[in-house]
Amino acid sequence: MAHDQSPLARPFPALPAIAGVTLRVARAGYKDWGRCDLTYAELAEGTAVAGVFTRNVCCSSEVELGRENVAQGRARALVVNAGNSNAFTGYRGREAVEQIMAQVADHLGCPPDQVFVSSTGVIGVPLPKDKARAGVSAALKAAPCSWEDAANTIGTTDTFAKGAVATAIVGGKTVTLAAIIKGSGMIAPDMATMLGYIFTDCAIAPGFLQELLSAANARTFSCITVDSDTSTSDTVLAFATGKAGNQQLNCGGCPGADAFAAALEDVCRQLAHLVVRDGEGAQKFITVSVTGAVSDESARRVGLAIANSPLVKTAIAGEDANWGRVVMAVGKAGEPADRDKLSIGFGGTWAARDGQPLAAYDEAPVAAHLKGREIAIEVDLGLGAGRAVVWTCDLTHGYIAINADYRS
Amino acid sequence: MAHDQSPLARPFPALPAIAGVTLRVARAGYKDWGRCDLTYAELAEGTAVAGVFTRNVCCSSEVELGRENVAQGRARALVVNAGNSNAFTGYRGREAVEQIMAQVADHLGCPPDQVFVSSTGVIGVPLPKDKARAGVSAALKAAPCSWEDAANTIGTTDTFAKGAVATAIVGGKTVTLAAIIKGSGMIAPDMATMLGYIFTDCAIAPGFLQELLSAANARTFSCITVDSDTSTSDTVLAFATGKAGNQQLNCGGCPGADAFAAALEDVCRQLAHLVVRDGEGAQKFITVSVTGAVSDESARRVGLAIANSPLVKTAIAGEDANWGRVVMAVGKAGEPADRDKLSIGFGGTWAARDGQPLAAYDEAPVAAHLKGREIAIEVDLGLGAGRAVVWTCDLTHGYIAINADYRS
Repeated sequence: MAHDQSPLARPFPALPAIAGVTLRVARAGYKDWGRCDLTYAELAEGTAVAGVFTRNVCCSSEVELGRENVAQGRARALVVNAGNSNAFTGYRGREAVEQIMAQVADHLGCPPDQVFVSSTGVIGVPLPKDKARAGVSAALKAAPCSWEDAANTIGTTDTFAKGAVATAIVGGKTVTLAAIIKGSGMIAPDMATMLGYIFTDCAIAPGFLQELLSAANARTFSCITVDSDTSTSDTVLAFATGKAGNQQLNCGGCPGADAFAAALEDVCRQLAHLVVRDGEGAQKFITVSVTGAVSDESARRVGLAIANSPLVKTAIAGEDANWGRVVMAVGKAGEPADRDKLSIGFGGTWAARDGQPLAAYDEAPVAAHLKGREIAIEVDLGLGAGRAVVWTCDLTHGYIAINADYRS
Repeated sequence: MAHDQSPLARPFPALPAIAGVTLRVARAGYKDWGRCDLTYAELAEGTAVAGVFTRNVCCSSEVELGRENVAQGRARALVVNAGNSNAFTGYRGREAVEQIMAQVADHLGCPPDQVFVSSTGVIGVPLPKDKARAGVSAALKAAPCSWEDAANTIGTTDTFAKGAVATAIVGGKTVTLAAIIKGSGMIAPDMATMLGYIFTDCAIAPGFLQELLSAANARTFSCITVDSDTSTSDTVLAFATGKAGNQQLNCGGCPGADAFAAALEDVCRQLAHLVVRDGEGAQKFITVSVTGAVSDESARRVGLAIANSPLVKTAIAGEDANWGRVVMAVGKAGEPADRDKLSIGFGGTWAARDGQPLAAYDEAPVAAHLKGREIAIEVDLGLGAGRAVVWTCDLTHGYIAINADYRS
């Protein structure tokens, strides 16, 4: 099945080459869909790697092995299979991943734990070893391809290719980050999951890259939701080839570390937004800003309770300034809140202040705001200095159509 | 707006009179809907009361005052306003509730804290004091009405009147429980919330009634979900007039206490199921049975993660035996689970055992089961003896239509 392109889609950006990264795609034929479905990225020797993975305890072998392998900090290759997530497939699934790692390691002459594998698609079907072997062989011989080719090849039910770019000056050298991602629901195990890959030429120690990636993740990927369902395969990996010529970044005090961290977070935020923009059935991109919480983490949890509420999401779909549903979502979040200090606004106009509807509430600008594609919900808890921003999309007939109106 | 009756509706049962309980309804005119919207139940002197209330921290004044007043254990009257929830209305909302309590207490010659008030409907609009005063006056003079009249009058967007009955033998006397409830989403602040009232002639001490109600609540109302959104006004009250002539129940060791507890839980479960059967847009009633968890509470949390998953609920709506989505929901629940010990079934047929799809899986009986109205999902975690049953409905276009396709 194919879906129309999301009305919130963004054109694929112009991504520069990253020294030390070569991309190739091939057709493994995991599904009968007549397109490339295996992506291979070869990475220069000495490339640093960091990763964040799903917290779903029923995770795939790819996630288990990726989490183990990130610990040693070095990567020579990435293989992404599209059309089969290989999740919930027991020992047979794990054998298929280990076969791919061994095949690529043999080709490159590197340890197998420097080969990272991701898979996305149907679950419960072990990744076919013969198709994987032939697909990897074909990819190793294929001509290099573009970022957009790779972005399209890792996708499944995505309605548009997603990429992001940023640069930073590190010790007088310009370092570049180029990144691609796929994802359309936080999960739809028949077909979709969130996989993101960031490539940079920056020279950076693996442990410090992991520290910066985890921090950026907490403010970006951990602040988006499409449908509250957490994938068994979600993975974001960052690869740093070290070819930019900068002095290696090792810690927060290094010159340029702040600039690199900001660029990394910028790329992560761009990627996270693109996933929301391709959210299943999405018609509106919603930014929920929470201030006045007792802590930043408390603000994030309140924001996610709002962003995950089906009643808030359907109200936005209906262009309805239903601040009562926002009050309800704040109250059910399980975080400190005082009904009589709570304020709610839309697009910069307060609808309720200090626990009561505003007598002077002017609904006209709010109604106009809600007719747009980009919606802002503002919540002030009136308790402290904690703040967070969370992003989501609305809940529409399109979501039901994608997830209920067909048989797997 | 009016919706078609739920396909899962049940006829209103024959409820007997409960000695010591008199019902009356009146038209307060909270909304312009040409029907009674104020329900009044007068209770014999000495009636014991117990209650459970929403945990939403942005709760209404009705909930705050009800929680305070239940502590003293006695009730003489209940007033339920439909069409205005009076939530998020600050001190003006609280004044309106206190006015009703004072008016009824003055009429009955009882302390105001023996008058219980609930309200359901739009939020953010203080309950109009003049309409409340006139409505209560009219109710106090009205002729007694039937259970079904009362059940219809407390409803808002409910598509059918909901009642339940049970009996128990307590010390040689038959005691009867009659109960009504309203609710269609766990919350839809424009119009709906869950309010349930149980009346019995049993003689029972208030503290023991509270203990039994809290226990029954944990296995019934706390085990249902329509849309994961927790109301600001949810309330269940139990009133015991003591007119059955049994020796007062004071503790679990009293003769008949077990029978009464079972009847109370039976009534609570009937009411809870009726709310799910009127879930917004519901086409299928889903029973999720979780076994093999490390504890009963862990099993309940896993069950609710499944029952709240939009992807599981849309799969059932699509009559799709998508056990992969069940695996995902188990994994995201935050409870102990081992992917390789997990088993998933539908309607008594296992689809996956011990972390892998069953080679001999016969989809035909599962497909037939999923075409019905009553769906069973079985999950065995393979870890311990903890078990729970949770009830929900599917997620359909009807839910979106009710909650998004109109302006408040």
